[in-house]
Amino acid sequence: MVFSSSLLENAVNEFAKLPGIGKKTALRLVLHLVKQDAEKVQQFSGAIAHMREAIRFCSRCHNISDTAICNICNNYARKQELLCVVENIRDVIAIESTQQFNGLYHVLGGIISPLDGIGPEQLTIDSLIERIQKDGITEIIFALNANIQGDTTIYYISKKLKGVPVKITTIARGIAFGGELEYADEMTLAKSISNRIPVENYIVSGN
Amino acid sequence: MVFSSSLLENAVNEFAKLPGIGKKTALRLVLHLVKQDAEKVQQFSGAIAHMREAIRFCSRCHNISDTAICNICNNYARKQELLCVVENIRDVIAIESTQQFNGLYHVLGGIISPLDGIGPEQLTIDSLIERIQKDGITEIIFALNANIQGDTTIYYISKKLKGVPVKITTIARGIAFGGELEYADEMTLAKSISNRIPVENYIVSGN
Repeated sequence: MVFSSSLLENAVNEFAKLPGIGKKTALRLVLHLVKQDAEKVQQFSGAIAHMREAIRFCSRCHNISDTAICNICNNYARKQELLCVVENIRDVIAIESTQQFNGLYHVLGGIISPLDGIGPEQLTIDSLIERIQKDGITEIIFALNANIQGDTTIYYISKKLKGVPVKITTIARGIAFGGELEYADEMTLAKSISNRIPVENYIVSGN
Repeated sequence: MVFSSSLLENAVNEFAKLPGIGKKTALRLVLHLVKQDAEKVQQFSGAIAHMREAIRFCSRCHNISDTAICNICNNYARKQELLCVVENIRDVIAIESTQQFNGLYHVLGGIISPLDGIGPEQLTIDSLIERIQKDGITEIIFALNANIQGDTTIYYISKKLKGVPVKITTIARGIAFGGELEYADEMTLAKSISNRIPVENYIVSGN
């Protein structure tokens, strides 16, 4: 692309650095901003600059936060002894959006994956073990993706917790609501049969 | 989506205002920025804020510009008597990228489209007519999208120029009908400029 304006070119190049944004999309976004009121663009760039400067990670659960301890950890209406272990911040947002979980989180910051060079020491596992022992956690729920890396991570942490009096559970695996049985993979279908639940529970817990 | 950080939420909401960016994509982009060095994010937000504050439109050709008169109009190595009439800034970038056109531009700022409420008075047509008469333009090339609106605009301007001693041409219809100019490959676009045909021929041959 040849630009007659270096201001435009810079802005397009900056947008094109974002993942999944090519040059043409970047140009479309920048030209959209050119058409907006200066005030609105100020609001856009300001929100991003301010976010990056002020954002931090919760020193307890490693979730993204505005303060040293995040809103979730600071909310004493939540069950302080129930911990949901997730891979990243997106998972916290996904679970919070269900409005069904009332405990705290622990963000691992990734998942054990030797092929990607990610070992336990890169994750917040030590801080998790410490937290479980110090904060009187009675149950941890693993909410990790159902793949080899997720299972490895569950196995590794469970082993580390041997002897620690904490209940360890994992979110149910099975056929998604609205999912077609015939398109489910064999592994999921097999697990959903062997881990079947009494109909009473299914109906009572309500979907 | 439920966020535990209002800084994050603001940034995601700002991104989600951009065209074609949904909440999930916005979140992905913002979390990417969170992971970047503060300096790089500063560069991103700074480039956009500075662009919007400083950018202006060339008072001659209405192209986007860093200065009162744009780089293209100010370049006297270019043919000052040859004018390419385009709908918008994206088209200027597309044609400049072919590196085949050596004249100046005139950006209409849209195209005559009664259905969208865009008439000649919303466009820079008066300034085009004035420019042709004052600046000794000998040829104008219409490089508009090949559709009814484009043809209407060509017809309207051609009629306005009746009696004015200027050659009126249009880019060759090498571009598929219904095709968008900005998505054409550079080769096709370059050929369509070098093979431009007089408007009389274009109308006789009928599209």
